Amino acid sequence: MHETRPGTARERLLAAALDLFAEHGVSGTSLQMIADRLGVTKAAVYHQFPTKDEIVLAVIDPALQRLGPIAERAEAQRGHTARQDAVLAGVVDLVVEFRRLSSTLSFDPVVVRLVRTHHALRSLQRIRRMLGGTAPDPGSRVRIAALSGGLMMAGADPAVAGLDDEDFRDHLLAAARRILRG
Amino acid sequence: MHETRPGTARERLLAAALDLFAEHGVSGTSLQMIADRLGVTKAAVYHQFPTKDEIVLAVIDPALQRLGPIAERAEAQRGHTARQDAVLAGVVDLVVEFRRLSSTLSFDPVVVRLVRTHHALRSLQRIRRMLGGTAPDPGSRVRIAALSGGLMMAGADPAVAGLDDEDFRDHLLAAARRILRG
Repeated sequence: MHETRPGTARERLLAAALDLFAEHGVSGTSLQMIADRLGVTKAAVYHQFPTKDEIVLAVIDPALQRLGPIAERAEAQRGHTARQDAVLAGVVDLVVEFRRLSSTLSFDPVVVRLVRTHHALRSLQRIRRMLGGTAPDPGSRVRIAALSGGLMMAGADPAVAGLDDEDFRDHLLAAARRILRG
Repeated sequence: MHETRPGTARERLLAAALDLFAEHGVSGTSLQMIADRLGVTKAAVYHQFPTKDEIVLAVIDPALQRLGPIAERAEAQRGHTARQDAVLAGVVDLVVEFRRLSSTLSFDPVVVRLVRTHHALRSLQRIRRMLGGTAPDPGSRVRIAALSGGLMMAGADPAVAGLDDEDFRDHLLAAARRILRG
């Protein structure tokens, strides 16, 4: 199936890749499939991105780049609660903006492997620490694990597909606060 | 890499498949990879499971079969709160028992496709309805979407990997109640 979408060749390639990742997972998507979807040769895809890992990184990079500023802005707040509020607001905004991406790729084994060696991992760890995800008590750990999963996956749910971004953001932030604060 | 684990040939095959699904996603795992992991021929795998879909279904079936009884037990309760409590207890038990499975496969595109036509989908819909996931207000919808994601993915979090099942269950149930009730 050929697609003609607006944007540069690179943007069209990344959009087609994300569609295919959502349908088949990253491991189930080949450079050839991406080429076929775009109606170009595999060589043309290869010319822009010699490996699939580079495509995945290009798809997730804009979201990962946001983690550092979120961590910094939160760390600049005084007091535990203000820091948590800043983290939650930043992460919820990020999830809403990259709604489709987060639910499609967050738990893909290939993405998990790539993020593990990405410099943004440090920001992610700072964010988790501020939320209490590294606290010694099991209650905090489970709460943050459930919060992470809830934030990442909420956008994938067909029941929220029809909500506009503002509604989705407000209610997701409320749900996130509820998990953290009780 | 060959593995020798206890259990029948079928159980060993399914365990090896789940390992590979966790590493590569379902789409990134071939019958040949499963055969190699077990140190058998592809024909031997094919003899038990002619398609990968059948392997995936065999892996997820024990968990899916539990959804019907969870829905029935909850529907037998009187009152909204008692029904929600029964649903949460049942689903949290299920998540704890199939801890690894839920986090590995719940959002895999292949699994999502297979569940969509599985008879257990009806039980899942009954369960979501009891939790309020089909309510018209956006707040309930987002809450249930976050709850589902949180329940499914919490077990995948490295920060909870060391917790025993009882601790994990208790704190996950508490977090789930918090999302629902505020």
